[in-house]
Amino acid sequence: MAPKQGKLLSLINYPSDLKKLKDKELVQLCAEIREFIIDVISHNPGHLGASLGTVELAVALHYIFDTPKDKLIWDVGHQAYAHKILTGRKDVFHTNRMYKGISGFPKMSESEYDAFGTGHSSTSISAALGMAVASKLKDNNGRHHIAVIGDGSITGGMAMEAMNNAGVSNSNLLVILNDNGIAIDKSVGAIKDYLTKITTSRLYNRIKNFTWRVLGKFSKYGLNTQKIVQKIENAIKGSILRNSNLFESFNFRYFGPIDGNDVEKLIDVLHDLKRIKGPKLLHIITVKGKGFEQAENNQTIFHAPGVFNKNTGEIINDPSAEKKPPKYQDVFGETIVDLAEKNEKIVGVTPAMPTGCSLNLMMKKMPHRAFDVGIAEQHAVTFSAGLAANGMIPFCNIYSTFMQRAYDQLIHDVAIQKQNVVFCLDRGGLVGEDGATHHGAFDLAYLRAVPNMTVSAPMNEEELRNLMFTAQHENMGPFSIRYPRGRGVMLNWKTPYKKLEIGKGKKIIDGKDLAILSIGHIGNYAVKVCDILKKEGIEIAHFDMCFLKPIDEDILHEVGRNFKNIITLEDGTILGGLGSAVLEFMADNNYKSNIKRLGIPDKYIEQGNIAELHKECGYDVEEIYSSVKKILGK
Amino acid sequence: MAPKQGKLLSLINYPSDLKKLKDKELVQLCAEIREFIIDVISHNPGHLGASLGTVELAVALHYIFDTPKDKLIWDVGHQAYAHKILTGRKDVFHTNRMYKGISGFPKMSESEYDAFGTGHSSTSISAALGMAVASKLKDNNGRHHIAVIGDGSITGGMAMEAMNNAGVSNSNLLVILNDNGIAIDKSVGAIKDYLTKITTSRLYNRIKNFTWRVLGKFSKYGLNTQKIVQKIENAIKGSILRNSNLFESFNFRYFGPIDGNDVEKLIDVLHDLKRIKGPKLLHIITVKGKGFEQAENNQTIFHAPGVFNKNTGEIINDPSAEKKPPKYQDVFGETIVDLAEKNEKIVGVTPAMPTGCSLNLMMKKMPHRAFDVGIAEQHAVTFSAGLAANGMIPFCNIYSTFMQRAYDQLIHDVAIQKQNVVFCLDRGGLVGEDGATHHGAFDLAYLRAVPNMTVSAPMNEEELRNLMFTAQHENMGPFSIRYPRGRGVMLNWKTPYKKLEIGKGKKIIDGKDLAILSIGHIGNYAVKVCDILKKEGIEIAHFDMCFLKPIDEDILHEVGRNFKNIITLEDGTILGGLGSAVLEFMADNNYKSNIKRLGIPDKYIEQGNIAELHKECGYDVEEIYSSVKKILGK
Repeated sequence: MAPKQGKLLSLINYPSDLKKLKDKELVQLCAEIREFIIDVISHNPGHLGASLGTVELAVALHYIFDTPKDKLIWDVGHQAYAHKILTGRKDVFHTNRMYKGISGFPKMSESEYDAFGTGHSSTSISAALGMAVASKLKDNNGRHHIAVIGDGSITGGMAMEAMNNAGVSNSNLLVILNDNGIAIDKSVGAIKDYLTKITTSRLYNRIKNFTWRVLGKFSKYGLNTQKIVQKIENAIKGSILRNSNLFESFNFRYFGPIDGNDVEKLIDVLHDLKRIKGPKLLHIITVKGKGFEQAENNQTIFHAPGVFNKNTGEIINDPSAEKKPPKYQDVFGETIVDLAEKNEKIVGVTPAMPTGCSLNLMMKKMPHRAFDVGIAEQHAVTFSAGLAANGMIPFCNIYSTFMQRAYDQLIHDVAIQKQNVVFCLDRGGLVGEDGATHHGAFDLAYLRAVPNMTVSAPMNEEELRNLMFTAQHENMGPFSIRYPRGRGVMLNWKTPYKKLEIGKGKKIIDGKDLAILSIGHIGNYAVKVCDILKKEGIEIAHFDMCFLKPIDEDILHEVGRNFKNIITLEDGTILGGLGSAVLEFMADNNYKSNIKRLGIPDKYIEQGNIAELHKECGYDVEEIYSSVKKILGK
Repeated sequence: MAPKQGKLLSLINYPSDLKKLKDKELVQLCAEIREFIIDVISHNPGHLGASLGTVELAVALHYIFDTPKDKLIWDVGHQAYAHKILTGRKDVFHTNRMYKGISGFPKMSESEYDAFGTGHSSTSISAALGMAVASKLKDNNGRHHIAVIGDGSITGGMAMEAMNNAGVSNSNLLVILNDNGIAIDKSVGAIKDYLTKITTSRLYNRIKNFTWRVLGKFSKYGLNTQKIVQKIENAIKGSILRNSNLFESFNFRYFGPIDGNDVEKLIDVLHDLKRIKGPKLLHIITVKGKGFEQAENNQTIFHAPGVFNKNTGEIINDPSAEKKPPKYQDVFGETIVDLAEKNEKIVGVTPAMPTGCSLNLMMKKMPHRAFDVGIAEQHAVTFSAGLAANGMIPFCNIYSTFMQRAYDQLIHDVAIQKQNVVFCLDRGGLVGEDGATHHGAFDLAYLRAVPNMTVSAPMNEEELRNLMFTAQHENMGPFSIRYPRGRGVMLNWKTPYKKLEIGKGKKIIDGKDLAILSIGHIGNYAVKVCDILKKEGIEIAHFDMCFLKPIDEDILHEVGRNFKNIITLEDGTILGGLGSAVLEFMADNNYKSNIKRLGIPDKYIEQGNIAELHKECGYDVEEIYSSVKKILGK
């Protein structure tokens, strides 16, 4: 069912349509786009807050610039819904984040207007600079290259690396700093304080406003705006204000701050900025959730609220949720608080994901021992290594997909030095609707290659708790625990802690016809398969390995000796993970069983719900069942 | 043979000895340490230039601070020779970088004075902040936490992430910015320009100098220096100079710049800074190669000059070098220039390693098409992705070990989007004297896990050239080519280009008793082994796979069908690389051969020359020979 569209929006399919509107009509259009987004996202969950904040920006950018010739990159990309709606995807927007639908993020293969695919944070300036340099080399045709980046994302290290490079590049680059003071949780760090300071500094803004007024005046008369701006600024700032601004230290020309939810103002300013060459940054202030009262007031909750009532703003919770097992992230959140109350060495670290990983529970209870370090995975890991080197036991919680950002730090600062850092990798395995950029597909493979690591994945809540309990003992060295997005399987999950033996799995059920070796939550699928097959008279042995490294060699010897057919099962790539570890062991020990590896195949898996994706990858209950039958020739 | 020591240096073994000297004697001691370093490094190659520049700093830090209680971290760490000499390692300093000798970098397991191991750049602020936070949580005992970081390293993204976090932490953290304008090659980027600007700004420095003078005066009378400094600065700077400085934007208190090769000045200043709490940054100006004329004048060459005459400064080249095969890095450097002359889409990208990877050849010949982006691997990769998205074919050259820094960018920005970026990974495999932090041990394993990647490694110069030639064709997608440190095997290597078929290896020699499957340069060892065994009547088949992904399935079928015994050989970890790929294929296709994997075992390999390390890892010619004989039961 296609959602309703306002009068103006119904006329718009592409930026060329947008350009036919008058300036004055854009305010109305923004209101209609906002309503459209709220309508669709209230039924089909997505990233609401960020996209409501950037409606005016998306309209203004496509109105002023010549996309797709001009290159427009949305950092992270979950704020790009208005952009998608304005660039040919209005009529499929209701399939946002669905299986076979459109992606929740910009994606090059989806539209020529998506100049660069995003998902992970802080990539946009690097990509835009690369494009700008390419344009200069190719044809020098005056193309514009625009990166829209949030005040959270700009603190990611690679954004700084990019600015350091861009500042000396003389490229036609416009960075739009979308400052709403919040990523998913409140932004943190010195730069956030700094942005607040310049935004509220009267002297600074008086000077800036003067510049703007003059700029606006002259540009109407078609004068050379760039020269005028330079002259005015030089005159006013003289030597005392030189480099008075962080971004000017990076050799960017800084403009702003201006109200980014004022579309007419944005159009004026972007129109002027088009004529200014070289690297420049426009600082805009927007409100996350703009125009939807409940979203403005509860920005973290309405970042991605799930289904809600678009009239009242009430979030519609699953009524059966209370009777369901907990989310793994909450098992982590509650357990770390519990453990930290007993072990004063425990501290918690998250790179800007306190709500997403539930470390917010610890931040609330013991704020001096739980640290949100900002969007900064690299720093989060080496900061943890420093904490450990000075006697603490940090639990560093990072989504599996974002851990890719800190692979070197994990090797170089933690593992080589055998630091007692516990990595809790949330969102391990397929994550569902966020799609290809966000699946935790590689962690088991890339962590297994690292010497000194203990690599584990619990099959249920109890095992997660016991792994955390085990990992916080002295001298455990680098220890990773990965678990998936979503819920576990136990209603009564607060069982007494038990210290696990490192590298020991367990036999879930005995059997004789075939052995399944699984790691992690996905092992619960194997449990079901074994049940079903048992009723058919087929006896499958199932082992929950729990540890990928060191792997349980007793189990592997037992299986190698007794089973002609083995299936390995993991919610991760089949290249280099559990399956490969089992093959290596069997080869080293001269076992000749047939081994079938089930896991994520060697391709990128797009968005969809988790059940759909597990089926596509061949390891939901039905597919595992079929694999067993096929192997057994039945 | 222990090198000669000056009169004062002979009295010093630990910082406690140093503290017995008078201020005035430190100048002499610095001269003696410098002479000692030059003497040792002239025989036993190491990182000369950086360590000569920081002699005064090392002396001053250990003189003023209470190491090892106070935590001192040397970023990168190749500037820490004076530190090592002053902290119990003077008498073993001549074993620097040797097999079983001391490491060329700080290393926690080597000395309690090495508060944190380093090697890769830009980690020190994160680690020092972690330690500072831990100190506060543990005992709040006034411990100091000092990160010494160069003007190159501070542009690395994670250093910025760390400053953003530290600026709001109120921790007892001192960052010493060792500004010598050069990393290995000249520093680049906006921040470098910025540092030059503040260093040469008269007004700024007049204010700063005034502060310093007053500061020095009052502190002698035991007054509360911190308060006084704050008052003076506030009075002078008022609101107009607020945040006038990049580091002050990060909420660090900024001091300097001062002459970092003036030990007395350093001691004065550090003495005062000890009393100032919170995050602070001292900017010192040093000269790389200080005190050795030739090193001062040729800073890039004397970064790590090899053997040289300590009297004349003449670098003693290997007289037989001209008759030897070229270094792989030079094959890369010459070939990219050659290819770029014919294909205007080709551009070159290096993160601060133009000399190390020989992209300097292209930077000289076609400066507008070859980019040194600074110490910024993450940015280098996404910048390359941006270039590719706008039609270029970038060759992004990164040392294998540093590629770990950009794993996420490679997946998220290049591979998912199938961008035509060619990764040339220099220093793949064991690198020798730089040791555990620098070996390129993991790339084959972690790249193989990435969908859409072509992963290759040439066995010789001709194959490297042909891989580069092949990779620059249209629509090749993400393509990696890894090769080792050091020389190839061909004297006449400029053979005509040939486009290779993707995923095709070749049979080097036929045989029937056993098959060796190798990838990369290490395959030349197999050639020798086959030769030796042939003379003993043992016929080994040897295949150069060339591509790890896609792997040559024709070869694997042939080998699987015809050989009972297979050896895989790679200069990389045996967990997840070629050996695992072969096991996976054989399992998927029901071949039951015995497979022995040779490669880097699952541990960190320390420093030594490459021959020593290949032997230790079991894959030099002798060890491969033994493996074959053992497998064949002979």
